[in-house]
Amino acid sequence: MLRTCAKRLRTLGSPLCQPGAQRRSFSSEKFIHKDYALPNPSWSKDLRLLFDQFMKKCEDGSWKRLPSYRQNFPEKIQEFQTLYLDSSLPKGEQHAQQFPRSLDVGLGFEYVMFCNDVERRVLCFLQVGPHLQGTPGFVHGGAIATMIDSTTGMCAFRAGGIVMTANLNINFKSPIPLCSVVVIDSQLDKVEGRKVFVSCNVRSVDKKTLHSEATGLFIKLDPDKSLKKKRSL
Amino acid sequence: MLRTCAKRLRTLGSPLCQPGAQRRSFSSEKFIHKDYALPNPSWSKDLRLLFDQFMKKCEDGSWKRLPSYRQNFPEKIQEFQTLYLDSSLPKGEQHAQQFPRSLDVGLGFEYVMFCNDVERRVLCFLQVGPHLQGTPGFVHGGAIATMIDSTTGMCAFRAGGIVMTANLNINFKSPIPLCSVVVIDSQLDKVEGRKVFVSCNVRSVDKKTLHSEATGLFIKLDPDKSLKKKRSL
Repeated sequence: MLRTCAKRLRTLGSPLCQPGAQRRSFSSEKFIHKDYALPNPSWSKDLRLLFDQFMKKCEDGSWKRLPSYRQNFPEKIQEFQTLYLDSSLPKGEQHAQQFPRSLDVGLGFEYVMFCNDVERRVLCFLQVGPHLQGTPGFVHGGAIATMIDSTTGMCAFRAGGIVMTANLNINFKSPIPLCSVVVIDSQLDKVEGRKVFVSCNVRSVDKKTLHSEATGLFIKLDPDKSLKKKRSL
Repeated sequence: MLRTCAKRLRTLGSPLCQPGAQRRSFSSEKFIHKDYALPNPSWSKDLRLLFDQFMKKCEDGSWKRLPSYRQNFPEKIQEFQTLYLDSSLPKGEQHAQQFPRSLDVGLGFEYVMFCNDVERRVLCFLQVGPHLQGTPGFVHGGAIATMIDSTTGMCAFRAGGIVMTANLNINFKSPIPLCSVVVIDSQLDKVEGRKVFVSCNVRSVDKKTLHSEATGLFIKLDPDKSLKKKRSL
């Protein structure tokens, strides 16, 4: 599957599909191991201010910044494969990229998440780039859904380990202007067996505008069963 | 807002932010006016077969292929601005790109939609590229949500004109393998005043696997009121 996909992309001449190739980014760093949840020149003043505020809150250990990568670490893939999959991952996996991080720097999702494990919260400070447009001048609903899934999913992961999304229910209250910064505030509601319930809201930086409200239901993966067997959740 | 964003991106040296610059793609065509809902070398056999099948169904006029672009046409932006916005769109709008089309060819969302206005259905044939990964080897929930929003939104648009998403409720039944092809089948349920209700499911090409089920509620925009006034839907 991924092997065939990688082959087709090689035919297209994509540099991303040549082993060892580097991501076309604004730096020459290899994409693997680069932490993207740190300021870069595309970050607005609002995003930098929020970042700085929460880095200070990290000093006493109550909050923690969560690093973020474009690719999985090989040892993590191996562990996941051993625990949850019936068969090996196809050979093309090393060419895959994590979705919200796969757009070019500054054009898609620029974000950093901070967690507070005592409060069971994960905050995401998100700048929505110009390549996330839906209605002219505003962000596509799917782009908002993507970051709601990522943030609530991270909140569920902090409580329950590796999880998969089972339900997302999103109310879009007010459209988000393109290139603005919003705060996604997620909170663990409860854990019932393998089910992890999380809720969240998306607000403007000044908190005056409620853009979205959502709930997420996540299912903890069970190492005793393969993912293939558990596909029908 | 977008003006500031474009300025920051120019500082970064992005060729997308220089007026008249071309998209870094596998061809040298300008992105504006290019219809992306047509086969390209990254399309798998499955996607091409579905495309060919439905192009034949278009011959008697019952189905229609929907073109798809990375950027809005200037006259459409002008019309939208005149009808729905309080103020002008910021200067940077011409640099914005429509989200599901903004990833590089073959790496993100490869899709084509067909509509049947008598049956009030929109089908989307979607190939999920390697840059849409969530859990290793599978598609990110947000990427699925994005295409559910786009497809159900198109179904609502066919019935109600310009709409915005008010609610999305998605049940993720079975993870979608990266680089596979799925069929998103959306159906208009009802229209009540400005509310348009749509449901959909996401299945494997052989229809044996139900990946997701979803409902979408959309609100028709009203030319008598500005979008700014209607932000609290």
